[in-house]
Amino acid sequence: MLGVCYYPEHWDESRWAEDARRMRELGISFVRIGEFAWSRLEPARGEFDFGWLDRAMDVLHAAGLKVVLGTPTATPPKWLVDEHPDILPYDEDGKVRGFGSRRHYTFSSQTWWRESARIVEIIAQRYGAHPGLVGWQTDNEYGCHDTTASWGAEDLKQFKQWLRLRYQSPQQLNEAWGSVFWSMELKSFDDVRLPNLTVTEPNPATRLDFWRFQSDQVAAYDKMQCDILRKHSPDRWITHNFMGFVSDFDHFKMGDNLDLASWDSYPIGFVEKFPFTEEERNRWAQTSHPDIAPYHHDLYRGVGKGRFWVMEQQPGPVNWAPWNPVPKPGMVRLWTWEALAHGAEVVSYFRWRQAPFAQEQMHAGLNMSGLDELSPGGLEAQQVGEELKAFADLPASEKAHVALVFDYQSYWTTMIQPQGKDFRYEELCFRWYESLRRLGLDIDFVRPGDSLEGYALVVVPCMTEVDVATEAALSKATGHIVIGARTGSRDRNFVIPKNLPPGPLGQQTGNRVIQVSTLRPGLSDAVSGAVSGAAIRWRETVQTSAEVLARFENGDPALTQSGNMLYLACWADEELLSSVLALAATKAGLDTLPLPDTIRIRRRGNLTFAFNYGTEAWTVPAGVKILLGESVLEPQAVSIWTK
Amino acid sequence: MLGVCYYPEHWDESRWAEDARRMRELGISFVRIGEFAWSRLEPARGEFDFGWLDRAMDVLHAAGLKVVLGTPTATPPKWLVDEHPDILPYDEDGKVRGFGSRRHYTFSSQTWWRESARIVEIIAQRYGAHPGLVGWQTDNEYGCHDTTASWGAEDLKQFKQWLRLRYQSPQQLNEAWGSVFWSMELKSFDDVRLPNLTVTEPNPATRLDFWRFQSDQVAAYDKMQCDILRKHSPDRWITHNFMGFVSDFDHFKMGDNLDLASWDSYPIGFVEKFPFTEEERNRWAQTSHPDIAPYHHDLYRGVGKGRFWVMEQQPGPVNWAPWNPVPKPGMVRLWTWEALAHGAEVVSYFRWRQAPFAQEQMHAGLNMSGLDELSPGGLEAQQVGEELKAFADLPASEKAHVALVFDYQSYWTTMIQPQGKDFRYEELCFRWYESLRRLGLDIDFVRPGDSLEGYALVVVPCMTEVDVATEAALSKATGHIVIGARTGSRDRNFVIPKNLPPGPLGQQTGNRVIQVSTLRPGLSDAVSGAVSGAAIRWRETVQTSAEVLARFENGDPALTQSGNMLYLACWADEELLSSVLALAATKAGLDTLPLPDTIRIRRRGNLTFAFNYGTEAWTVPAGVKILLGESVLEPQAVSIWTK
Amino acid sequence: MLGVCYYPEHWDESRWAEDARRMRELGISFVRIGEFAWSRLEPARGEFDFGWLDRAMDVLHAAGLKVVLGTPTATPPKWLVDEHPDILPYDEDGKVRGFGSRRHYTFSSQTWWRESARIVEIIAQRYGAHPGLVGWQTDNEYGCHDTTASWGAEDLKQFKQWLRLRYQSPQQLNEAWGSVFWSMELKSFDDVRLPNLTVTEPNPATRLDFWRFQSDQVAAYDKMQCDILRKHSPDRWITHNFMGFVSDFDHFKMGDNLDLASWDSYPIGFVEKFPFTEEERNRWAQTSHPDIAPYHHDLYRGVGKGRFWVMEQQPGPVNWAPWNPVPKPGMVRLWTWEALAHGAEVVSYFRWRQAPFAQEQMHAGLNMSGLDELSPGGLEAQQVGEELKAFADLPASEKAHVALVFDYQSYWTTMIQPQGKDFRYEELCFRWYESLRRLGLDIDFVRPGDSLEGYALVVVPCMTEVDVATEAALSKATGHIVIGARTGSRDRNFVIPKNLPPGPLGQQTGNRVIQVSTLRPGLSDAVSGAVSGAAIRWRETVQTSAEVLARFENGDPALTQSGNMLYLACWADEELLSSVLALAATKAGLDTLPLPDTIRIRRRGNLTFAFNYGTEAWTVPAGVKILLGESVLEPQAVSIWTK
Repeated sequence: MLGVCYYPEHWDESRWAEDARRMRELGISFVRIGEFAWSRLEPARGEFDFGWLDRAMDVLHAAGLKVVLGTPTATPPKWLVDEHPDILPYDEDGKVRGFGSRRHYTFSSQTWWRESARIVEIIAQRYGAHPGLVGWQTDNEYGCHDTTASWGAEDLKQFKQWLRLRYQSPQQLNEAWGSVFWSMELKSFDDVRLPNLTVTEPNPATRLDFWRFQSDQVAAYDKMQCDILRKHSPDRWITHNFMGFVSDFDHFKMGDNLDLASWDSYPIGFVEKFPFTEEERNRWAQTSHPDIAPYHHDLYRGVGKGRFWVMEQQPGPVNWAPWNPVPKPGMVRLWTWEALAHGAEVVSYFRWRQAPFAQEQMHAGLNMSGLDELSPGGLEAQQVGEELKAFADLPASEKAHVALVFDYQSYWTTMIQPQGKDFRYEELCFRWYESLRRLGLDIDFVRPGDSLEGYALVVVPCMTEVDVATEAALSKATGHIVIGARTGSRDRNFVIPKNLPPGPLGQQTGNRVIQVSTLRPGLSDAVSGAVSGAAIRWRETVQTSAEVLARFENGDPALTQSGNMLYLACWADEELLSSVLALAATKAGLDTLPLPDTIRIRRRGNLTFAFNYGTEAWTVPAGVKILLGESVLEPQAVSIWTK
Repeated sequence: MLGVCYYPEHWDESRWAEDARRMRELGISFVRIGEFAWSRLEPARGEFDFGWLDRAMDVLHAAGLKVVLGTPTATPPKWLVDEHPDILPYDEDGKVRGFGSRRHYTFSSQTWWRESARIVEIIAQRYGAHPGLVGWQTDNEYGCHDTTASWGAEDLKQFKQWLRLRYQSPQQLNEAWGSVFWSMELKSFDDVRLPNLTVTEPNPATRLDFWRFQSDQVAAYDKMQCDILRKHSPDRWITHNFMGFVSDFDHFKMGDNLDLASWDSYPIGFVEKFPFTEEERNRWAQTSHPDIAPYHHDLYRGVGKGRFWVMEQQPGPVNWAPWNPVPKPGMVRLWTWEALAHGAEVVSYFRWRQAPFAQEQMHAGLNMSGLDELSPGGLEAQQVGEELKAFADLPASEKAHVALVFDYQSYWTTMIQPQGKDFRYEELCFRWYESLRRLGLDIDFVRPGDSLEGYALVVVPCMTEVDVATEAALSKATGHIVIGARTGSRDRNFVIPKNLPPGPLGQQTGNRVIQVSTLRPGLSDAVSGAVSGAAIRWRETVQTSAEVLARFENGDPALTQSGNMLYLACWADEELLSSVLALAATKAGLDTLPLPDTIRIRRRGNLTFAFNYGTEAWTVPAGVKILLGESVLEPQAVSIWTK
Repeated sequence: MLGVCYYPEHWDESRWAEDARRMRELGISFVRIGEFAWSRLEPARGEFDFGWLDRAMDVLHAAGLKVVLGTPTATPPKWLVDEHPDILPYDEDGKVRGFGSRRHYTFSSQTWWRESARIVEIIAQRYGAHPGLVGWQTDNEYGCHDTTASWGAEDLKQFKQWLRLRYQSPQQLNEAWGSVFWSMELKSFDDVRLPNLTVTEPNPATRLDFWRFQSDQVAAYDKMQCDILRKHSPDRWITHNFMGFVSDFDHFKMGDNLDLASWDSYPIGFVEKFPFTEEERNRWAQTSHPDIAPYHHDLYRGVGKGRFWVMEQQPGPVNWAPWNPVPKPGMVRLWTWEALAHGAEVVSYFRWRQAPFAQEQMHAGLNMSGLDELSPGGLEAQQVGEELKAFADLPASEKAHVALVFDYQSYWTTMIQPQGKDFRYEELCFRWYESLRRLGLDIDFVRPGDSLEGYALVVVPCMTEVDVATEAALSKATGHIVIGARTGSRDRNFVIPKNLPPGPLGQQTGNRVIQVSTLRPGLSDAVSGAVSGAAIRWRETVQTSAEVLARFENGDPALTQSGNMLYLACWADEELLSSVLALAATKAGLDTLPLPDTIRIRRRGNLTFAFNYGTEAWTVPAGVKILLGESVLEPQAVSIWTK
């Protein structure tokens, strides 16, 4: 199904009906509105103007569109900021982040919670039962623009409170943090300060707690909104639109509040955000990398417990990356089908019409700037709208054979303590994901601690703290498991385990990591044996009682196996990584289909989808029944088949 | 004519007469003094010491030198800053920029205006009729060290006032800025804040207005000084010494205050400032690029409505660039003749003698540090002094055949919203200028809105807002016109035109830009047809009713012509740019003389000057009458001829 | 002799005795403790807990270990910072540097001096005569984490006082600084402000004075501690553990307080800190560069007037560099022997056992994290412990044949005014040192002004101010002297000498520098004659009455000789530098032994040590008597022989 993001407040009311009609004509069923409109809904404290939104909802509903209404908390209006400057966030340098764009609030401000609750309640009461309303979106892109954390007085106040609850006594806090080191001992919770503006690095345990605290705040703030919405609008679902590559808070935990997840898919902009090489950036500049969007689809399908939308789909060039190329013809269509292939319920384009003014004026829409005329991306959306008529009921997305355990805390931990400057958790997971997908495999993202039953292959690229639930899930798993380096290297207090890493997995892996070497770019350590390639970036010295499947140059174990558990003692280069994952897939008994680096396939029920990100055609497997596209998959083309 | 910058306050009074005598001996006629001497003229509030300056003026005058006196406002003394800290500027991060160097004031401070008026009036009254005085310089290098803008409380106060005058009501301001976007609506002018320290980018329209406001302040502040000087010194001219590559304020607008323009020419230092490639920087390190100084000569001849000086000419290595090489032998002489070729009335060296102390101690002078002994550069100046005797009356510089419309606002607009990280307006204009000069053409810089009559070829590399006057001038122009990409892409409120870019030129060009792609370094789009080369950085998708002269790879129009107007829909690489400008010159019926990239020529009246920046000799055209130099132009040599 | 750093407060008291026993077993004689333990010794104002330290000292003493006790001032506890926030330092941007790591104090705070004196006195009184105590360490790594300077109100107050003493009157200060430039004149010492946050660069003379002031404060603060320690513990020696490549204060001057110097040797971490090329960084990543540790050994032997320790020796991978590789097997042993070869009295490893918690949890120890089990580095230390039994009394380190005059002020001066961005004093000295050592020479670092008698060869890579004492020492020196560029280029007030550089050495060198060119990377000027190679970075134009040994491309003098003094008028590339120093060594009559770039030798008394940092074996000179190792020096091996 298709959707679109729409801003009735940006256009003269006389245009709304025609806009709605043309949306329907294009095959659009859902329309998201309202998420930045606070200053129009409440132009001054207590003075409300709902007339325009009432009429907009009615017009959209009348045209047969289903409305998703956003709470407007991502943009506190000027009068509110002036009344209550304590809602403003502070950056890590201690500078206030002021009014003038968006997300100018800290999750720590109690004033802000009160004001958020007030506006959400008013809106929920007014529209919670509107017949055109099908669901809610809370706020907009939590964490975007580095807004998960704030470093002001309000934040310190709440952090102290969080620590009080966690540690009960300063003695226990000192013990947990190892405050004896460098005389950092605190005598009361009032002694706590934020872990910024120190002479050299602050205590990593403090930093991790500050990160956990921030993450908890996002979840709690969102829950506050959800509780109000559910109270006043009990029959509508709730989602939030997550961003790509924003891992500052635990999306799984926050996702517990939601009925379904959604995310904002800007495949080309993300090419500049992800740490690709320059060569890769140039190569994928106009199509995006073939795993950027899928990686997030699979992640958010996991966050949404199987249900997710693309709430904002890039429909053409955007405005916010260092460079903003026009996507190659066909890509807007391709991305749309690809999202559906990965299980998206709805793909909603951002936005209906390009705005000629303000910050996003260079962001394409389905219609050209200010006009009632489809843009090149709009024409592709139109084509998908037509094509979808033949796929009225897409089959459900089934459980994949492969599980990737994704752990937000490992991102925080390795950001706090990289040890090697290029140890980047998101990059690591992405490369494992890419390598698996080039084997033609479908992948589920699994939350740490969740059951791993039913998966033939489980991969854990890195999980710094292996908690009790995860340890249990791993020991119960019947499939093959590949554990990456640095797993189990810290306990819950950011302390090295007494039995050395991998800590709780020491027995199951048969390993003990006695030393870690981080390697600067250009250095590597060759690996050979059952797999081959090289270690880069991170390389462990392992003592093992397990079978050694491959060794480093000096004979140290590089890949070990004990029972169903493989342990990879390094950051693997591309060759080694594919070698390891192919071996693991074979051991797991999985059928693989090695793909060119420009081709990806994905199954949804009995359908198989194929996508071509490259410049050369690819022939789909013989003997299948083509439902869409051709058996020769041209560049930027999509094919769908059944067996 | 030659001049020199001199600081009598830096040297014992006993040396002044001999210095003056040696200046005359060198062929120097003009001497600029006084522009940093406030603390010597008024050591404490209201305590004046004019004796030394009286005597210095008398000594210089007695030696036959003509004095240019600078107002000392670039260096407010410590006692004034302590009395009135509100004169200090603030950086964009909100940090005060304190006393201890120069230009530590904000144009927004009313105290500063009052104090500036006071000191200028006192000096103007005292020296306005001195027989040695021929002219005034206001302040020194406005905008240098990023001092056009300031971000403090005084600046906010004045910005609000400026907005009140521009928009009359908050409603009109909200409308103009598109404040409905992201709930940025303001209820009164008091709600305005500076567009810094926001969470993500602030509204581009706000930023543009802040930039316009700053630019207006520079012009108004300068006018205040000029009005006082004219009142008390009615028979003397006034200039200001502009810097190179400082485009933060509109020099044309400020130049309206002046009788003539002047600028400070540091050709080698600018090689590190301009975004050349590393290869170019190495190549031109010891000569400068052959268009760096000429580009500014032609710009400031335009700003000065035909009249300009070089107020400070680099005489050897300087101190302020990342690297400061000694110029190749001959370059100081070459630069001097080159300035004259471009119409400079006077070339004034900075400075007479290298100072052994303080910030500029590594800056060469005509004399070595502290000594009465010519430096290598001083010896070259001496040679020019000799040679000039044969050119007592240089002919006037005539109107060129080619006009380049230069628009400061386009610099601001594209800085605010590059869309592609390497879209740099100054670089674009420089490359167009370079390409034209390599065809042997002379160029005038024309202010937007000024008449374009009489020019065979008009080039507009980019002009984001085409105002009514410029639209009229372009439609009246009878020569050929080349319009570059992004022209007409915004209206006065930073809004995309309703008819899409090029907005007001839509009809005259026959074009409509429906999409823009920005390309990262390494990516390009080949262009072929009547011209060839490639688009880099910026590439438009154009719908056209005009003749298509060249196309991009996919067939989209790259160069169109409608009547006398060509439109180039991209940022052109070197090959494409020369190809387009050569084609345009041919269409315009201009005689061109393709030059090596190290050779440049310039006409002044009946004289033609040639300059060799390279390492190989070049033979001047046959059949001319050589007045200076040789027919074989050796490296770093100058030749002058008539037909 | 071997030592180790130990933190009894980090481990349960029950483990201390066994730790001590195992230290002795390993061959360790010395143990440093206590330097970060303030919060454990004085948990709250006036509440002391010495019991644990009493017991720890007793346990260590009982095991036969000699204790070095550190004063705990590098880590002011939280309660003290809260009581007296004026002890906190400020960064150059004006931001406070808060509690949460270490070194969070400014040397300018009088409160801090009072509190430091208080705690040092209490500790000195309690432990000054403890039978296990052999010496004291003051504080820890002064200047580490950029903590020599602070930019707050306390610093300004003390700086004014320092200036009052230096200049007596504001007139003399203005004269010295050249304040007439840019109207920077001050009317009283109260007008002084710190040289930060200015619009463009502040006066270099002000900056140099601020640097001298900071350096003086470090020395004075340390002296305060030493005076107290000597009063209460008269029979124990005092040292301080200096860092590598921290040159913000004058170590010679501060070293006057000490009985012996010591330093903290992290050879691999320094590879990332020193401005090596990327190629060099990769090459030396796992061994360090063969001159990194030796350079500091020789420097600190000079600072300690012949006596020095390695107080902290890297025993494996560390945690604080951008990448932290495991050293190649053999390197911990090699570094230990190398330190001894250069005259170290004791090599003390940091630390006994890796801490599983807090900031340094990834820093290896002799024992693995939390365990009583030797790490790979611990096993190498054990080997050295065994080997040392055969070398009970190492002979004394004799005076070298070569002196390198090392001048901290030249580092400050060239940091303040690089003139060419890559003029780095430490790098210059290091490259001269490297070049000399590749000739097989031993080198002493000599303090400016100290006697140079007895040295066959004296090198002065750069000494911006040649003071009277140094001028005298140079003129009395009987060996050959090589003076590098930029020497004598400033007087004590940062003013260019009246006779131009090299100022006081003008007569002795026969030279006058009339011009300086700085060359960007990629540019050079070939040198030929008695030596050959090229000038890079810095190139002077010299007028000379001396013999010209080599010339630049255009014939200007590059290397001159007058009597025993050679002058090198540029920054030499590797080829030119070896050529010049080989020539000078020959002129000085020194026997040289050209070495591969991976091999180094060092003499101590009658012993010669050889070290192999490379991947290929090297054969030691024939006919020697091998005492340790083999005549074929394998990679990472050590050999010791006598003639």
